[in-house]
Amino acid sequence: MGLTVALAGGVGAAKLLRGLARIVPPQNLIIIGNTGDDLELYGLHVSPDLDTIMYTLAGLVDETKGYGINADTFNCLTMLNKLGHETWFKLGDQDLAIHMTRTVLLREGRTLSEATAELCKILGVKPQLIPMTNERVRTKIITDKTTLDFQEYFVKKATNINVTDVQYEGAENAKPAPSLLDAIRNAQKLIICPSNPILSIAPILAIPAIRNEIKNTKAPVVAISPIIAGKTVKGPADKIMTAMRLDASAYGIAKYYKDILDKLIIDTADRNQKNKIEKLGIKTTVTKTIMKNHEDSFRLAETLMRTE
Amino acid sequence: MGLTVALAGGVGAAKLLRGLARIVPPQNLIIIGNTGDDLELYGLHVSPDLDTIMYTLAGLVDETKGYGINADTFNCLTMLNKLGHETWFKLGDQDLAIHMTRTVLLREGRTLSEATAELCKILGVKPQLIPMTNERVRTKIITDKTTLDFQEYFVKKATNINVTDVQYEGAENAKPAPSLLDAIRNAQKLIICPSNPILSIAPILAIPAIRNEIKNTKAPVVAISPIIAGKTVKGPADKIMTAMRLDASAYGIAKYYKDILDKLIIDTADRNQKNKIEKLGIKTTVTKTIMKNHEDSFRLAETLMRTE
Repeated sequence: MGLTVALAGGVGAAKLLRGLARIVPPQNLIIIGNTGDDLELYGLHVSPDLDTIMYTLAGLVDETKGYGINADTFNCLTMLNKLGHETWFKLGDQDLAIHMTRTVLLREGRTLSEATAELCKILGVKPQLIPMTNERVRTKIITDKTTLDFQEYFVKKATNINVTDVQYEGAENAKPAPSLLDAIRNAQKLIICPSNPILSIAPILAIPAIRNEIKNTKAPVVAISPIIAGKTVKGPADKIMTAMRLDASAYGIAKYYKDILDKLIIDTADRNQKNKIEKLGIKTTVTKTIMKNHEDSFRLAETLMRTE
Repeated sequence: MGLTVALAGGVGAAKLLRGLARIVPPQNLIIIGNTGDDLELYGLHVSPDLDTIMYTLAGLVDETKGYGINADTFNCLTMLNKLGHETWFKLGDQDLAIHMTRTVLLREGRTLSEATAELCKILGVKPQLIPMTNERVRTKIITDKTTLDFQEYFVKKATNINVTDVQYEGAENAKPAPSLLDAIRNAQKLIICPSNPILSIAPILAIPAIRNEIKNTKAPVVAISPIIAGKTVKGPADKIMTAMRLDASAYGIAKYYKDILDKLIIDTADRNQKNKIEKLGIKTTVTKTIMKNHEDSFRLAETLMRTE
């Protein structure tokens, strides 16, 4: 089994990756993480998607929420609130220790990919996790009235807002993190995790060198549809696809990734879309894709790795 | 009643100040705080003495320990420890919110005195608390083998070490914080709180402009002896005085402050030292000085403010 490279957002990706990590030897699994929704909070650099993946692969994650650290407390946040800070982004006390460590590393002059490697090492996360870039890329949500940072939209406004466009500020000129293009070039299989296409995967693909390398790869590019029966398992993928005049369906996902995708895994609930998707030239596998527990993750990862 | 200015260290000072704050109107009470034992931890600026005073005057302090925040938790610290950080300095989760806020203010370009004023305002601390300087002064503990930062000595080594000298790095060239000299100049009474003379008050006096202004003040300078029956209530004042070949007694305190002191308040346990101290030209008041509760603080503050 050769090198597997996965493009990953947050919770959905992490659930697939915990399955993949049981099948693919760690030295053969490289994860490219979205940093478009990174933010600075109270002077700390927070990388929500990288954290969700690290916490999940380290076995630390709060499995009920899918993100954050299990049994974390929020006493610092409560005090920050009393001190008059906005506290809509729910940083746990243990969680803070990660952001503090990352921030110190960055202030010492390490890059985000070096800081991430260091955190993975400390947490015992063995597959390599590479942020898409060490430069600043920020996903911006445009509405008819205003421009929001990703987390303002995602957490503060709880996605209840009319989105007219999404922009990936800084992506056009961003360099991929070191070794990232090599990973894609050497991949035997390239996976697009079941993450929000517009908000989690598009920021990665918005970096021209990454998009190019993926277009040119000879390795099969396989995605798992994050849309099941027209809805997302979690998060606003369906809403934002509709807002962007995309079809919020497995077929819509196929169309969205058409120019890079070889294969798509869709849920049994969407089996009637298989033919339509295959007409786009995309091979389609139908299976159960909802990951409620570790076994679901393992089974989906197995199907994925069997897919030729 | 005119302006009262108090030079203050940590716990002992804070206990006196909570009494003073009940007697002296806030606009007439200015506290000059020691910053010689400030430190940077996990990228955060921590000012232990300023915090102890703020927490005490805000009614937030852990009264059992005398410092830190009441009922605080240490979940971030536990995680920092798991991440491989040294965690001998016990930062609580709520406590962290203060350091994060201060650090953000400093990084935004505010001075330590501006950040302190802001924190006091948020916490509802009404007397003005001024750090001795906005510049970096660091108390260094010299032993025959090595040089330690103050907190390494005080917390990490738990003061079990042979001290040969104490230095106040940066003090010689430090400018007092804005309005500090004016406060001393306009004081009707200048108080030296019952703090460690070598480790808490000397760093303040090591700034030449402050020492000069205090020497020249016409206001009475009154100290409360932190040494009772040859021992400190808390902390290593007795040990460090002995190490510095000073007499660890009320009389030793009088001698130490002789060139600036007009009056000394000593404990009833030391009443037999009154005559000896008065022979140094220092008026002496004997009273109960141990502050076990708010009433003790109030009574000592009353005695202090009655002392002419």
